Amino acid sequence: MKGKGLFGAVPLAHAFLRERVREGDRVVDATCGNGHDTAFLAELVGDAGTVWAFDIQEGALAATEARLAAAGYRGRAEFIPRGHEQLAAVVSGPVRAVVFNLGYLPGGEKETVTAAATTRAALEQAAALLLPGGIVTVAVYTGHPGGAEEGRVVEEWAAALPPARFNVWRCRQLNRPETAPYLVAVERVPA
Amino acid sequence: MKGKGLFGAVPLAHAFLRERVREGDRVVDATCGNGHDTAFLAELVGDAGTVWAFDIQEGALAATEARLAAAGYRGRAEFIPRGHEQLAAVVSGPVRAVVFNLGYLPGGEKETVTAAATTRAALEQAAALLLPGGIVTVAVYTGHPGGAEEGRVVEEWAAALPPARFNVWRCRQLNRPETAPYLVAVERVPA
Repeated sequence: MKGKGLFGAVPLAHAFLRERVREGDRVVDATCGNGHDTAFLAELVGDAGTVWAFDIQEGALAATEARLAAAGYRGRAEFIPRGHEQLAAVVSGPVRAVVFNLGYLPGGEKETVTAAATTRAALEQAAALLLPGGIVTVAVYTGHPGGAEEGRVVEEWAAALPPARFNVWRCRQLNRPETAPYLVAVERVPA
Repeated sequence: MKGKGLFGAVPLAHAFLRERVREGDRVVDATCGNGHDTAFLAELVGDAGTVWAFDIQEGALAATEARLAAAGYRGRAEFIPRGHEQLAAVVSGPVRAVVFNLGYLPGGEKETVTAAATTRAALEQAAALLLPGGIVTVAVYTGHPGGAEEGRVVEEWAAALPPARFNVWRCRQLNRPETAPYLVAVERVPA
């Protein structure tokens, strides 16, 4: 499967995920929102795989469930009405990928945003759950209140990861404003 | 074809190239060195494709030719004993990808390095030759004399590209020293 382009943090995250995720994999959408990433992951893992989709907003989970049903992927996902900081309490085994799309739900309540403290807890749990060769992708938005602080927390966390265990990329669009969304990708070094 | 990991600027460049390059494509290795990138490109484009491999060092072209012959790819490449600033004089038509691996030839003469002025000229020609949807990847090394200046020139060039025509990523490893090689990728927006 080839991608259609790399024109933003989310398409670039998908390119990284295509590199790592295989059929039958167990993966997590930590911030399912309208379900675009969940559907993408469900396509990658196939019928033998599982996607855990987290969101604290009921409307987000309902929209995601409808999107997956329409695509014929409904049996591939578990819908978890909890915050992503409860990741490790819900998902027990190792996973191939965890996807974060920070900020607020597009079209949803703008008061409901991810927050630095819970995001950091969720990132730590995600990295601990990764299989060797697995990947965490984080699309970071800094344009909303608290977004810049949340980005700083993501970068501090990622920069402190031991290079012998984790390969960390930060990708920014050089010809866009500083406030453009960007990507942090954390790959666990293969065994 | 899936990759083996994203553990450095060159593997990450290969992941970007896998996203864009198809069988039968015309592509350029602007700095063939020992031919690793040339061989990778030759694999992607197949027997119907063409790789133009540029290097001013005869030893580099000979090593690349031997590597391609061993892989059964020799007919897929043209070996060009010129500097990459002569790219547009040699390659006339549009191309899908141009790969730059800056700095010096591994194992070669350390006095022979790419230089900011000719690299900038080559980058401009490369971007002008790109097909819609095509990509230029630049692995940047700043650890040698002149390397930091060359990196600055690459970034200035890339940051000034019009976003309506080019999508520009700069990817750095957050948990490595500032001097670690990094990647600049320039994708021409599809038509």
